[in-house]
Amino acid sequence: MMNQAKSVEFFFDFGSPASYLAYQRLPALAAECGAAIVWRPMLLGGVFKATGNASPVTVPAKGRWMLNDLQRWAQRYGVPFVNNPNFPINTLTLMRGATGLQLRRPEAFAAYCDAVFRALWRQQRDLGDPAVLSATLAEAGFDAADFIALVSEPEIKARLIATTEEAVARGVFGAPTFFVGSEMHFGQDRLDFVADALR
Amino acid sequence: MMNQAKSVEFFFDFGSPASYLAYQRLPALAAECGAAIVWRPMLLGGVFKATGNASPVTVPAKGRWMLNDLQRWAQRYGVPFVNNPNFPINTLTLMRGATGLQLRRPEAFAAYCDAVFRALWRQQRDLGDPAVLSATLAEAGFDAADFIALVSEPEIKARLIATTEEAVARGVFGAPTFFVGSEMHFGQDRLDFVADALR
Repeated sequence: MMNQAKSVEFFFDFGSPASYLAYQRLPALAAECGAAIVWRPMLLGGVFKATGNASPVTVPAKGRWMLNDLQRWAQRYGVPFVNNPNFPINTLTLMRGATGLQLRRPEAFAAYCDAVFRALWRQQRDLGDPAVLSATLAEAGFDAADFIALVSEPEIKARLIATTEEAVARGVFGAPTFFVGSEMHFGQDRLDFVADALR
Repeated sequence: MMNQAKSVEFFFDFGSPASYLAYQRLPALAAECGAAIVWRPMLLGGVFKATGNASPVTVPAKGRWMLNDLQRWAQRYGVPFVNNPNFPINTLTLMRGATGLQLRRPEAFAAYCDAVFRALWRQQRDLGDPAVLSATLAEAGFDAADFIALVSEPEIKARLIATTEEAVARGVFGAPTFFVGSEMHFGQDRLDFVADALR
């Protein structure tokens, strides 16, 4: 007999520093709650376009506060975090990569997420530059030509669009967003509500 | 010999439900930290205009999430909170009232804040309606004619503008915002950072 397994859906975009912090914290939290993580790579730019929301950095004073705030959370969590001066970047290729690997090579998905999040939010790399992206992928053991072929597949492109549209339809307006069943929580600063929902 | 007293500045607007939650929690937190609260009534609409920020409810999906989120915080805090269907309202007169009482009748400031916050976030009153405002003030022991005279004083109007401009100059973009010295925290969900800063 199997019980219905507990799970939390994690909608994220690599370009969101709060998604990075959530990514660092969620596995331990989910394990503690006996819950599985359902990884939902989405395109935050598409979410913004569909909902009328915008990056916090479009309000300069909010962007300045947010940097300090993220540093305080990183310190509280004991997680390294270095702001990326190239932020915000276009994450379309990166999110297609996550979508593609999740579908075609699920065993490589974690290594890819780790390499991309680390490059953006610890190593200050400009992953919008194809040469930097190639080098980052190569370091993590990914073949650049394979990667380009993967992110060019129409099915992968369509799947990322579908996930993003599903997110919007379910009420997502930013990243990271978590669902426990139909209960939605927005922001890495709501992880304790996520834990409450899982317990 | 006197020590330099610890204090936290609390920039707020009655029209902000997160300011209401902070208002409910801050006194106990400040007392626990041995800190004084410096009340800084400001005009949130003026802050939005100056910074390019906007109410979260301007993004409908964010507004829907925010209502659920505020209820979860209220429940965690054990604070009654009822959403106000008249939200957002123009709080200019209300904030002038807070500014005026703080200056001219500081002994009545707390009763006024309590009556206005309660009317807006527990009693669902439309304080944008002058008759409802008069009735609310009367219940709390304020004379309507005195109040109108107070909020019409040029010095009071100018003082609210000055506080709002000071807030913006110091980096405020929303409400509630707290300062412990020059360290700024935004949001009722950052009260534990405020407590850390005070300890």
